[in-house]
Amino acid sequence: MSSDSKTGLQLRSLIRKSGELEISLASVPTPEPGPDEIVVRVEASPINPSDLGLLVGAADMTTAKASGTKESPVVTAKVPEAAMKAMAGRLDESMPVGNEGAGVVVKTGSSDAARALMGKMVAMIGGAMYAQYRVLKARDVLELPDGTTAAEGASCFVNPLTALGMTETMRREGHKALVHTAAASNLGQMLNKICLKDGIGLVNIVRSPEQAEILRKIGAKYIVDSTAPTFMDDLTTALVETGATLAFDAIGGGKLAGQILTCMEIAANKTAKVYSRYGSTVHKQVYIYGSLDPRPVELNRAFGMAWGVGGWLLFPFLQKIGPAEGAKLRQRVVAELKTTFASHYTQVVSLQETLQLSNIAIYAKRATGEKFLINPNKGG
Amino acid sequence: MSSDSKTGLQLRSLIRKSGELEISLASVPTPEPGPDEIVVRVEASPINPSDLGLLVGAADMTTAKASGTKESPVVTAKVPEAAMKAMAGRLDESMPVGNEGAGVVVKTGSSDAARALMGKMVAMIGGAMYAQYRVLKARDVLELPDGTTAAEGASCFVNPLTALGMTETMRREGHKALVHTAAASNLGQMLNKICLKDGIGLVNIVRSPEQAEILRKIGAKYIVDSTAPTFMDDLTTALVETGATLAFDAIGGGKLAGQILTCMEIAANKTAKVYSRYGSTVHKQVYIYGSLDPRPVELNRAFGMAWGVGGWLLFPFLQKIGPAEGAKLRQRVVAELKTTFASHYTQVVSLQETLQLSNIAIYAKRATGEKFLINPNKGG
Repeated sequence: MSSDSKTGLQLRSLIRKSGELEISLASVPTPEPGPDEIVVRVEASPINPSDLGLLVGAADMTTAKASGTKESPVVTAKVPEAAMKAMAGRLDESMPVGNEGAGVVVKTGSSDAARALMGKMVAMIGGAMYAQYRVLKARDVLELPDGTTAAEGASCFVNPLTALGMTETMRREGHKALVHTAAASNLGQMLNKICLKDGIGLVNIVRSPEQAEILRKIGAKYIVDSTAPTFMDDLTTALVETGATLAFDAIGGGKLAGQILTCMEIAANKTAKVYSRYGSTVHKQVYIYGSLDPRPVELNRAFGMAWGVGGWLLFPFLQKIGPAEGAKLRQRVVAELKTTFASHYTQVVSLQETLQLSNIAIYAKRATGEKFLINPNKGG
Repeated sequence: MSSDSKTGLQLRSLIRKSGELEISLASVPTPEPGPDEIVVRVEASPINPSDLGLLVGAADMTTAKASGTKESPVVTAKVPEAAMKAMAGRLDESMPVGNEGAGVVVKTGSSDAARALMGKMVAMIGGAMYAQYRVLKARDVLELPDGTTAAEGASCFVNPLTALGMTETMRREGHKALVHTAAASNLGQMLNKICLKDGIGLVNIVRSPEQAEILRKIGAKYIVDSTAPTFMDDLTTALVETGATLAFDAIGGGKLAGQILTCMEIAANKTAKVYSRYGSTVHKQVYIYGSLDPRPVELNRAFGMAWGVGGWLLFPFLQKIGPAEGAKLRQRVVAELKTTFASHYTQVVSLQETLQLSNIAIYAKRATGEKFLINPNKGG
């Protein structure tokens, strides 16, 4: 590990044509910043579910093996044959990982904008954050208020903007309340805080009594457990009370998306005046933004004809609303970083510790409640 | 049967709480037309798939039994217990049937608009068309050019406007070509004529070589057979050539919608320049407008995150585009009624013949190629 900023370690993920995943640390020279650029010493970067897709790809992590040295560990694992087709676009390319992070500006280019950031704590998005140093344009980082730690600023983008993207999508598409699945996640807790603050009805779907308890403690009003025998009735009741006709689903596979649409249809028909063989005319929408369950989505279509299911991603959403609206959302995140948008981590690890099999076994599970933060400048 | 217009027979469909479907003919008085109204002697009304939902509901027509007399036949059938919940909105209500039709104006109200239609052939939509007489507002009917027969004018609305709704939706949602399933249907043939005339790429998915032959004869350019072992490759090739990213699916259940999205994704990635673990950024959409296969929709999500699947119905579409745009589509239908929008029927039946078990066995199958036309004023 270098003590200045001239070179630094960078985590790399490689999938070979032979079907082998290799995760390792590369020592890379830090580019000289251009006039408008800054060099950030990355001190905190979360492992989000959206990072795992690139980090481990379609590899079966139960086959993971450790090699290399303590300072420069290497992890290998097998990618199942059937999943290799989906990996075609990245084969034999050593890819940096890490969507977002925070750190201190240690060197700048000559422009005023760049020099003004010297020594500041900034939040960043743009990939390759699992690295000791990251060079970016000054205008692309978010300057954090004095007194903000790297850990506090590490998750300024993905979860906060995703949660705000959900309430914003709700408004723009004419819905009045929301349903959210895997609702006890970090993101789900954040969404609850936003909805409580903004007065938006939010129906939280969880998969265990323990997860329900997490949400109850932070003041969530509507919590339904999909493992309860009364799930469909409980959900319908909450939908009637909130009027929610839009759901964001992190689970993806199985029957849940269809069950949500079915309960929305039952709720809509409770207020319908005339029979229509096509079902209610109320548009019911589920956006799938995650894939905790990789099985196929199964829709029994017991919910009329006014429905939609689709993929939802943060970046296309931000592109759609444009830079001015996006900036408003980011300003809100900074203003409420220690309250609404506070993230909690269960472990802080170095780059080397990120490659320990015992840690991979935990974070690769994507279990609600477990959340890792990487500090690339922490001693391994 | 009455020889004047004072009373007339009307087909009725009733599902009792006990789980029994009953189809019968009721003798109903024809209301006196108000000043703005006209009385039409219905001479042709098609049995569309969209009519069958109301006509037979969820009944199992293999259990159908005939009773009553030749003049006043009655058909009964059992509704499976599991399907009764979906019928809740219509139980114990005797419902008239028939979305659209054509006939001659035999009596009018006192207004100029109504009187101007006396003796004219008109096309109608609005339900209760499986009847000898139908009273409507003069402004709600479509006057047909002299020399148009009732059979020619019977299907002016559902199929022509649905087919035009598909190309219109394509333009409005920013796609450049279309995919259509069950493509050899009456509707599918019409869509081919529109697309050939308007220069729109159309990929026709059929389920047999015979259906492919029907389309080849009318000049369809892209025809792929979903029962062929090379289906996925054939479809992908056609998608690359046409650039189609929007599909209208009449089948609904099973894997087809997902297969279409998968092939669209493969086609999109053939031109992609950089790897994205979220898949192509090209939005891929399937609208399900029918349910030839009542099984659940199964989506394996091997098509990135930029996708949508949803229900599509003609009437909400017409509401969305508004009356002025809707009128333009109707004008085109009338102008091209004997060419682009010509419908073909395999049988013309009376109301009594509509209730013959041998006929029900044919039209309730919803088989491509079979199409019934009811003439309620034909002798039984």
